[in-house]
Amino acid sequence: MIEDLKVVALGGGHGLYASLSALRRVTSGLTAVVTVADDGGSSGRLRRELGVLPPGDLRMALAALCGDDEWGRTWSEVVQHRFRSEGELHGHALGNLLIVALWERLGDTVAGLDWVGRLLGAHGRVLPMSSVPLDIVAEVELDGVVSTVRGQVACALTPGRVRAVSLVPADPPASPEAVQAVLDADWVVFGPGSWFTSVLPHLKVPELAEALHTTRARRLVALNLAPQPGETDGFSPQKHLEVLRQHAPALETDVVLADAGVADDREELEKAAAVLGGRLVLADVASPDGSPRHDAQRLASVLDEIFRGKR
Amino acid sequence: MIEDLKVVALGGGHGLYASLSALRRVTSGLTAVVTVADDGGSSGRLRRELGVLPPGDLRMALAALCGDDEWGRTWSEVVQHRFRSEGELHGHALGNLLIVALWERLGDTVAGLDWVGRLLGAHGRVLPMSSVPLDIVAEVELDGVVSTVRGQVACALTPGRVRAVSLVPADPPASPEAVQAVLDADWVVFGPGSWFTSVLPHLKVPELAEALHTTRARRLVALNLAPQPGETDGFSPQKHLEVLRQHAPALETDVVLADAGVADDREELEKAAAVLGGRLVLADVASPDGSPRHDAQRLASVLDEIFRGKR
Repeated sequence: MIEDLKVVALGGGHGLYASLSALRRVTSGLTAVVTVADDGGSSGRLRRELGVLPPGDLRMALAALCGDDEWGRTWSEVVQHRFRSEGELHGHALGNLLIVALWERLGDTVAGLDWVGRLLGAHGRVLPMSSVPLDIVAEVELDGVVSTVRGQVACALTPGRVRAVSLVPADPPASPEAVQAVLDADWVVFGPGSWFTSVLPHLKVPELAEALHTTRARRLVALNLAPQPGETDGFSPQKHLEVLRQHAPALETDVVLADAGVADDREELEKAAAVLGGRLVLADVASPDGSPRHDAQRLASVLDEIFRGKR
Repeated sequence: MIEDLKVVALGGGHGLYASLSALRRVTSGLTAVVTVADDGGSSGRLRRELGVLPPGDLRMALAALCGDDEWGRTWSEVVQHRFRSEGELHGHALGNLLIVALWERLGDTVAGLDWVGRLLGAHGRVLPMSSVPLDIVAEVELDGVVSTVRGQVACALTPGRVRAVSLVPADPPASPEAVQAVLDADWVVFGPGSWFTSVLPHLKVPELAEALHTTRARRLVALNLAPQPGETDGFSPQKHLEVLRQHAPALETDVVLADAGVADDREELEKAAAVLGGRLVLADVASPDGSPRHDAQRLASVLDEIFRGKR
């Protein structure tokens, strides 16, 4: 544990859950900056019904940071609890409803999330990347024809190949607290996660993108363990880096972290990292059970070494 | 404040909220035993959709006991927050959803309520009167014809005159913790509240009724400040006591507490109290603004004096 090292983790969904599960073991100065473009499931319904930010990715990030004691674990389970029924509540996560109630009550997005963080005894802070709900628009190629699809669900499920993403609105306000966290950070961590819909959108929020470019923090890109069906089908690790470069050509990267078992072509990956200005770190960060999930302890160990300059 | 005086408050809804708001100032040993027969609103929907106890009266009792600090007040507001929309969440109270999530997660009604109590920093414990959802059946007279209506909402809205209530199922299991609290109590407080649907149902749960008859606790009946349209339209304070006697003929009462402004006929009310074995205490317990609501501080002062044997 490195006291007070300021680390900002960017992402959403299960990928961010994985990076936070590791980073919470590494530093006490952790902030998650989370996508707010989900339009599916419980989040999508709440967004449409109540006009709020989609809370699901924020909830999952908070749960990843919950306290280690019975209190933290119990409230985390409750926050993650999903109703199952034949009726109107089916599929809603209690934590989504709790976050929205706090937002409606307090009239302040960040204050509401901080209250859930306090409830969970969270090891870090969770912030939205924008203060308004966003839609992801993907440029998609299918059989040589390029078209656009709108919405996170549509992007994730498109049979076409995603080439680029943008946001609607195109110039959304960043969360000021998120911008400040990036500017104050020692390290910024991109990914792992759904590349087009969870990792790259941060670079399409202008003020946040500017902070990500100008911060004196070092930047680490944590690559995925497997391509994501639909979104990044058939993408090599190098291709992920190329897409990142295409979305933020001026972004300098310090470290690209990949699982040793995933990097088929080490040399090519080193080259791709170098194009971003970074060096490649290969390490065993996948779950030992062979599933394409990061192992929190392994990832934590490697990140700890990188942050300490030992790797 | 009388340390460790064990007081059990029986009721539901706004009446119980009023008695708890007063009793929390009087003792640190407070337990609420709450009706679970609501079939309207958010509670009714949850009960039908998820097969759980109706949580609304339990939630309101917990909110009445919330901690005095920012933490307790904020979570109490959130728990009481009700969604407003054109959609499926409209009318649901967040606290109802939270309680149900805890029940589904923990598989234990009382443990779930205790967790909400801990969240709120509650000044006391809240228990359901039965471990299964109940329906109230009222015997109703209209134009000389006697019929029955089923359900709390129907009972509250019937144009007929309610004469008696019973429960379906007729022999529901009491909450063992509620029975024990009654047996261990120094004082048991009936009312104020909806007489037929919140105060009398406790006497129709056999094990709880037995405990209420056999406990060595003293018994106090707190009368309402006004008849309730529909349920007790035109009922005098005396009539409330007669109905109580009719539902539990062997129940001995120690004190009947009524607002001085409500008791039109003091002598008649003293007689009616004496029939129950009790003495009448008249005091100014209504809100000074003239509304038919109990003033928490006034009610607390009188209860404190009664419990100390000073009145």
